[in-house]
Amino acid sequence: MAGRLSAIRSVVPQVIATTTLNIDTAGPGFTEFTRDAARFLNEAGAHEGAFFAYLRHTSASLVIQENADPDVQVDLVTALDRLAPADAGWVHDTEGPDDMPAHVKSMVNGVSLHVPVIDGKLAVGTWQGLYLAEHRTAPHRREIVLQFIGSRR
Amino acid sequence: MAGRLSAIRSVVPQVIATTTLNIDTAGPGFTEFTRDAARFLNEAGAHEGAFFAYLRHTSASLVIQENADPDVQVDLVTALDRLAPADAGWVHDTEGPDDMPAHVKSMVNGVSLHVPVIDGKLAVGTWQGLYLAEHRTAPHRREIVLQFIGSRR
Amino acid sequence: MAGRLSAIRSVVPQVIATTTLNIDTAGPGFTEFTRDAARFLNEAGAHEGAFFAYLRHTSASLVIQENADPDVQVDLVTALDRLAPADAGWVHDTEGPDDMPAHVKSMVNGVSLHVPVIDGKLAVGTWQGLYLAEHRTAPHRREIVLQFIGSRR
Repeated sequence: MAGRLSAIRSVVPQVIATTTLNIDTAGPGFTEFTRDAARFLNEAGAHEGAFFAYLRHTSASLVIQENADPDVQVDLVTALDRLAPADAGWVHDTEGPDDMPAHVKSMVNGVSLHVPVIDGKLAVGTWQGLYLAEHRTAPHRREIVLQFIGSRR
Repeated sequence: MAGRLSAIRSVVPQVIATTTLNIDTAGPGFTEFTRDAARFLNEAGAHEGAFFAYLRHTSASLVIQENADPDVQVDLVTALDRLAPADAGWVHDTEGPDDMPAHVKSMVNGVSLHVPVIDGKLAVGTWQGLYLAEHRTAPHRREIVLQFIGSRR
Repeated sequence: MAGRLSAIRSVVPQVIATTTLNIDTAGPGFTEFTRDAARFLNEAGAHEGAFFAYLRHTSASLVIQENADPDVQVDLVTALDRLAPADAGWVHDTEGPDDMPAHVKSMVNGVSLHVPVIDGKLAVGTWQGLYLAEHRTAPHRREIVLQFIGSRR
C-alpha cells in the first residue's frame, strides 16, 4: 500500500440538487466562486456527498488553485499564455486572435470540477479555492451548473 | 459573492446506469460522441442528475470543445503537438516515437468527463461537444465507459 | 453515431462512502495508489457505481497513466518541467523556485479523478494506474479524499 486509509464513513444518497451560477468576467484572469458554491450547498441542505461544477463554455475553464497569494494567479495566466500564444499562427482566427488560444487553455484546464462535501462543507484544502478562469480578452457572462449528490442535513 | 445563483431544483437519485461505448479511431484527431452519449441517456431513461465518461486508455483523451468550426480541432491537435513533440528525446520509445507524446497529451487533457443532465439532456453549452481525442498515429479501437447517476423519467 | 453501445446495466444507488488516504511523497515523481483505492472499495462493500479521488493541495496533482514501463513516468516529469520551468521568471517566488511551477503543473493536470466501478472493481484499462504526482522538490505529506457512490455487495 502507498499510504494509510482512515475509517470509512457511509451515508445514504438522498438528493441531487442542481442550480446555475452566472458570473460576469472582466477579461483574462481568475474569479473565485468558492463562497457561491458554499452558499449553494447550504441552501440545498447538503450534508455529505460530492459537489460538481460544470462550465458551459469552450473559451474559459474551471480551476482549483491557491487562494493565498494573488501573484499565483498572475503567473498562472502567464503560464497559459506561454502554452498557447496569440501569435502562434492558428488556422481558426475568425473570432479574433484571442479565441483559439482560449480554446487550447480551456481544453488543457478542463471545464468541470469535483469536490467532496463533508459535514455540509466543501472538503477543500486550507489554501484551495474554486476559480472560473476567463481566457477571452473581452468581458463575458459565464454560466456554471452546480450540483450536489448526497445526504441531507 | 462572485455571481448570481438561480433557484435550486432537487430530485431523488434512483438509478446508476452503466454501459460501454466502442469507437474506432483513424489516427490523430477528434471524434465527437455527443449523440452516442445522448442516445445512452435516452435508453437509460435518464431525467436529472450527472453523466460521466471514462476512457480506458493512456494514449488518448476525452475533451469537451467547440463543435462549430472544424478548424478549431486542427489547431487543438497542433497545440498538443507543440506541448509534446515527437522528437523531444523521450526515454520511453519502445512503442514508437508517437507513444510517449500520446501519454503526455493524455495526462494533460485527462481521461474522464462530467456533464450535468437536465430534463433528460446533457446540459452542454450551445457550442460544446464531447470528443474522444486520439493521440497515436495508427488507428485504434477505444473503449469509453458511460454512466448516469440520477432520477428516472 | 460514432461508435457501438453495449447493453445498459442499472443499479440503485445505496451508499456514499468517504475516507481519507494519506501518502508521504519523496519529492518530484509519481506514487501509485491503485491498490489503496481497491482496498477502500473492498472495505466499503462497493458493488457498482463511481469512484472519486480528490487531492487537498495545489502543488501536486492526480493522474491516470500507464503502469507498465517506469520510463513513462520519467518522461512525464520531464514534460511537466518543460511546461513550467523553474527559471521562467515567476512573480510568485516567496516559497522557493519550485513552488510556482508546481502550481502550474497542478492546474494543468488537475486534482481530482473519476473512475467507474463495475462488480466491485475499478474499471481501469489494462495498463492504467492511479497516481499522485508530487511537484515540489521536498518530501510532503499529501491528503486524498476517496469516495464511492453506488450499490452495495
